[in-house]
Amino acid sequence: MKPVKVGLCGLGTVGAGTLNVLKRNAEEISRRAGRQIVIDLVSIRRPRPELDLAGIRTTTDIMDVANDPDIDILVELIGGYDNAHELVMTAIRNGKHVVTANKALIAVHGNEIFAAARENKVMVAFEASVAGGIPIIKAIREGLSANTIQWVAGIINGTGNFILTEMREKGRDFADVLKEAQALGYAEADPTFDVEGIDAAHKLTILGSLAFGIPLQFERTFTEGISRIAPEDVTYAEALGYTIKHLGIARRTVNGVELRVHPTLIPTKCLLAAVNGVKNAVMVQGDAVGPTLYYGAGAGAEPTASAVVADIIDVTRTLTADPNNRVPHLAFQPDHLSDLPVVQVDEIETAYYLRMQVKEKPGVLAQITRILSDAGISIEALLQKEHGTANAPVIILTKQVREGNMNQAIAAIEQLDDVQGQVTRMRVEHLDLA
Amino acid sequence: MKPVKVGLCGLGTVGAGTLNVLKRNAEEISRRAGRQIVIDLVSIRRPRPELDLAGIRTTTDIMDVANDPDIDILVELIGGYDNAHELVMTAIRNGKHVVTANKALIAVHGNEIFAAARENKVMVAFEASVAGGIPIIKAIREGLSANTIQWVAGIINGTGNFILTEMREKGRDFADVLKEAQALGYAEADPTFDVEGIDAAHKLTILGSLAFGIPLQFERTFTEGISRIAPEDVTYAEALGYTIKHLGIARRTVNGVELRVHPTLIPTKCLLAAVNGVKNAVMVQGDAVGPTLYYGAGAGAEPTASAVVADIIDVTRTLTADPNNRVPHLAFQPDHLSDLPVVQVDEIETAYYLRMQVKEKPGVLAQITRILSDAGISIEALLQKEHGTANAPVIILTKQVREGNMNQAIAAIEQLDDVQGQVTRMRVEHLDLA
Repeated sequence: MKPVKVGLCGLGTVGAGTLNVLKRNAEEISRRAGRQIVIDLVSIRRPRPELDLAGIRTTTDIMDVANDPDIDILVELIGGYDNAHELVMTAIRNGKHVVTANKALIAVHGNEIFAAARENKVMVAFEASVAGGIPIIKAIREGLSANTIQWVAGIINGTGNFILTEMREKGRDFADVLKEAQALGYAEADPTFDVEGIDAAHKLTILGSLAFGIPLQFERTFTEGISRIAPEDVTYAEALGYTIKHLGIARRTVNGVELRVHPTLIPTKCLLAAVNGVKNAVMVQGDAVGPTLYYGAGAGAEPTASAVVADIIDVTRTLTADPNNRVPHLAFQPDHLSDLPVVQVDEIETAYYLRMQVKEKPGVLAQITRILSDAGISIEALLQKEHGTANAPVIILTKQVREGNMNQAIAAIEQLDDVQGQVTRMRVEHLDLA
Repeated sequence: MKPVKVGLCGLGTVGAGTLNVLKRNAEEISRRAGRQIVIDLVSIRRPRPELDLAGIRTTTDIMDVANDPDIDILVELIGGYDNAHELVMTAIRNGKHVVTANKALIAVHGNEIFAAARENKVMVAFEASVAGGIPIIKAIREGLSANTIQWVAGIINGTGNFILTEMREKGRDFADVLKEAQALGYAEADPTFDVEGIDAAHKLTILGSLAFGIPLQFERTFTEGISRIAPEDVTYAEALGYTIKHLGIARRTVNGVELRVHPTLIPTKCLLAAVNGVKNAVMVQGDAVGPTLYYGAGAGAEPTASAVVADIIDVTRTLTADPNNRVPHLAFQPDHLSDLPVVQVDEIETAYYLRMQVKEKPGVLAQITRILSDAGISIEALLQKEHGTANAPVIILTKQVREGNMNQAIAAIEQLDDVQGQVTRMRVEHLDLA
């Protein structure tokens, strides 16, 4: 078969990685794909003498790639929303297949993009948009297609996981580790997307849609970052047999679908708790298969390129397939997406970790536990630390409770004269103990 | 599109699971596949009143399914070699696609079966043959298709892993745990396939071919089981920071491909070491993606059915695809398989764990370490236990060495007057420490 011609937009970290992988593994790749995959055109903002672009046409205008009649597949690696959106929509309208690593684009504009792709009978592949090199989209969309998915829970931001791992292993505080992560190049100069959970929320939005067959609803994904986790919470969690991880959780419940990203206490003996540093891992629980886990590098030039190139090969296969019989973009046929509602955060049910400073005198604990019990909240464990000091921290683990009830109980506890300041709270998930 | 008609051969554990999953998740599955998937005909040896076969034709002869003109996809779940071989070949010659969970069949007859499938333009899908519900074949064949795979290492026999987990966690001995595994239904009455590593070798043969693009070569896969692991080896390994797992390892080396299944010491902090009980997990190291891991249930009715049904959906997609542009059975185009040789076991390079009983008197250790050093073998660690007894165990961890050299050194050590009986040996792999 004749070579497939790829147009590459964006020659940053992942773009250069894609160039390298396609060149280094050219023979391996064509032995698999059954034809050559050739980068024919790249858009490039400034000269990059360190990259070998021999035999590749270049342009400074990304739209040239979308409009080039020779290009079969446009690879979008410029990132961000606006330019990428226009680029991808133009490519689709021109009948080009698209491969993208852009989670923000898919989470925010995916519904529109997939509708246009369907209309124009092209594929938009986005494996690299979630968890880098881990083929998690393929696993959910194809590998587990026999299952009713019950939940997905993942460590899907490497920067956040690096920070939490350092806090846990070395007792360091958040700001300190963040500075190191920036120096190491793991975190951006503006770390908001990573540490406030926005990047993870983009990815979770995508995973939730794939798992449950619902339209992408980034605006309904509850998002909380890691910037307020204190070193003592890491220590107390550990003492109780838990590890704090920043998780994206998508869960099917009787009320609809929970989509939430937040720091979470998980049992230390759970496999996810052993995923350290910049690595990512996603657990998927299906009704037939039970718990499964997928682990690997969630970012970086070549791991992300691994997913980009796998997508190019997948698209190459579908070039000769009936457009109506391809794997659907969101795992379910577009005319059979579900209208399962996304549950409001008040309606979420989880267990809780609470930490509060109390004056050590008789009756305080009785008042607190009374408030919890009146709200129908059962206590799993209670620790009182540093006895003998005037203000002692009290740590409480609760059983499962509706978040709205917990909010009311916390407000009541904070009203008590003998409780100082705010109650620190984190959600607790037991997942599968596997 | 019109429903796809499936003929099911074999209504044992996995067959009944497949029936249940297809019925329970019928709506979810057709929302994904874009059409209904219907079991139209089953072969059944004896009446099964507990199964709901309403609306399904039955026959007592499996060959009826292979010859039925209405059947699009034959699902082979009868197991074993001979009947399954004839059944699958007949189905292929009749132009039917095949889905099978039969690792023995694929490992031993796969080359012939895939050639026939190609000639008849049908697919033979076998995701369920390795690691049950974990979509590991899809991950290697499609998800990591951009990579030159460097090695694959997996816990791919649940019975064996259950036994090793019990030995480690409870200090029990092999025979004792095996009896319990048989009582629990994890191990067969004849446990040879599981405990002697044959089942794992079938699976590793398949993984090796997918990873490196070589023909299936079960007869060249080196196989060693777990029946000779002593409780004290589990304890000593632990003391040295290692856990004993029964691994299948396929590795690309300068001399060719290593294909081997054997008990292996791996660092306890490695994620694979935390995979316990009947669960399976496979690590795959690609040159672009780095280390990745896939974890889940490796056996059981519904986990295996999850893979069988996913394969049925995959085959359904390819019904409208160009037969020459499908994902190749062994990941690489059949006319581009590699003739990389499988390395003889003598040529394998690994580190070693050795245990021997020595008379405690001056000079014995000097003799042993001299033999190792003369053979060019470096020592990583040496433990002498139970000082003061007449016969003390000595445990040695070596650095990487050619197996042939190690065999010679062991023979020489066993000749020493002060070394009692045979030297116990196990291979040590550091994998990635991730």
